[in-house]
Amino acid sequence: MPVPAEFDGLRVVLVDVRNPLNIGAAARAMSNFGFPHLRLVNPYDVAFRNARSAVGAAATLATAEVYKTVAEAVADCSLVVGTTAVGHRDLQHSLVRLEKGAGAIRTHLAAGFCALLFGSEKFGLSKLDMSHCHWLMHIPTRDEHTSMNLGQAVAVCLYELMRDPSAVEKPAKGNPASSVELERMTDTLLNALRASEYPKLNTSKSFHGAVRRLVRRLRLQQGDAVFLLGMLRQMIWKMKKNEDAEG
Amino acid sequence: MPVPAEFDGLRVVLVDVRNPLNIGAAARAMSNFGFPHLRLVNPYDVAFRNARSAVGAAATLATAEVYKTVAEAVADCSLVVGTTAVGHRDLQHSLVRLEKGAGAIRTHLAAGFCALLFGSEKFGLSKLDMSHCHWLMHIPTRDEHTSMNLGQAVAVCLYELMRDPSAVEKPAKGNPASSVELERMTDTLLNALRASEYPKLNTSKSFHGAVRRLVRRLRLQQGDAVFLLGMLRQMIWKMKKNEDAEG
Repeated sequence: MPVPAEFDGLRVVLVDVRNPLNIGAAARAMSNFGFPHLRLVNPYDVAFRNARSAVGAAATLATAEVYKTVAEAVADCSLVVGTTAVGHRDLQHSLVRLEKGAGAIRTHLAAGFCALLFGSEKFGLSKLDMSHCHWLMHIPTRDEHTSMNLGQAVAVCLYELMRDPSAVEKPAKGNPASSVELERMTDTLLNALRASEYPKLNTSKSFHGAVRRLVRRLRLQQGDAVFLLGMLRQMIWKMKKNEDAEG
Repeated sequence: MPVPAEFDGLRVVLVDVRNPLNIGAAARAMSNFGFPHLRLVNPYDVAFRNARSAVGAAATLATAEVYKTVAEAVADCSLVVGTTAVGHRDLQHSLVRLEKGAGAIRTHLAAGFCALLFGSEKFGLSKLDMSHCHWLMHIPTRDEHTSMNLGQAVAVCLYELMRDPSAVEKPAKGNPASSVELERMTDTLLNALRASEYPKLNTSKSFHGAVRRLVRRLRLQQGDAVFLLGMLRQMIWKMKKNEDAEG
């Protein structure tokens, strides 16, 4: 998947994060989804660049910038968005669900830089951290369990930023069987049923149509139609052979 | 956030997962997003129920079911979807992007059970595992780094399943300031500028209108308008006081 150039304008800012594994996990999700710029405010462990869980995230960790304060980390950003788990805190900001907030961030990224802030594992963003934000965003979760793992929260936010609602399905290999091929399949299946002395074949007038519809519902690919035809022909051969032997 | 009843029909199935921390992370995301049913096929560590990272996921882990084979784990499901990182494997299935696939899964859940399969950390799902699937789904990632952390992949898939594109923004506390309040603000700001001997006030004919538009662009809440008015009035008082003292 090609990465839009404006993703270069997002700064993922982790504030007071304690566990280097979480920094690594955040960096890995950033690498997966194409957001290169990681900033750390006051990380507890300066050895974060070696974070073990960061498979494929080495480049993101190597270029991560470290700041002492939130103010310095967001200085070049014209939009600052804080993430929060919506506990019982009395929020002073307007609070936007991720689905809506991501749209606003994407729009902003076309014009300027945006900082997306995540707080510490235990306490989230402080009131002081939040006072640097234009607004807050939350991931919609069950009311009974709103607190997400940091690496998972970063992954979900970045996914929402890059998801493409107009993405199209990769077609399965090969082409759908044509009507001629489906009709051949229908006939062969009916022949096999005849050979097996399937009872309904002669009693029900609508049976032929029922089999034709059944074959269409299978949505067969050309290759699979050939595959199944071969199986049925083999069975027909065997059934007739047994019959000849009996007769 | 209330959880739709049909989420009860999804089985998250982890196949051959090696690290109990990843099982815990998957369980935590399931708890966050309201998917209660976890199934494990052949987990490497039978002590997975104690997985450390599973904050708030104890209930999901406690009720997790363990199976020996994929066939047994998906037996009651009428739709089986495998996840894959789309490497260079020669896939035999049709492959659907998460944005599209989640819609198909949601539709199915209204009628029947669905199993969503995740493979081992190192190898993903095997060809044999995949042969139990109706189709495969992938999370859209950068071509250079397609392999996601397991816990993050589960979180992103479940988020896409439960996200609500029609979710509305929670309005900020309080109400937007009325036009009367905005006009009071405009007048007070102009008074303050007059008191400060702001030069443009008398030279530019369009200045009054420019200030009125500026005040509207601030999108003030009622409470903030009152807050700012008080500040300005204090400054006006101070400027006039100094003037009186000078005069």
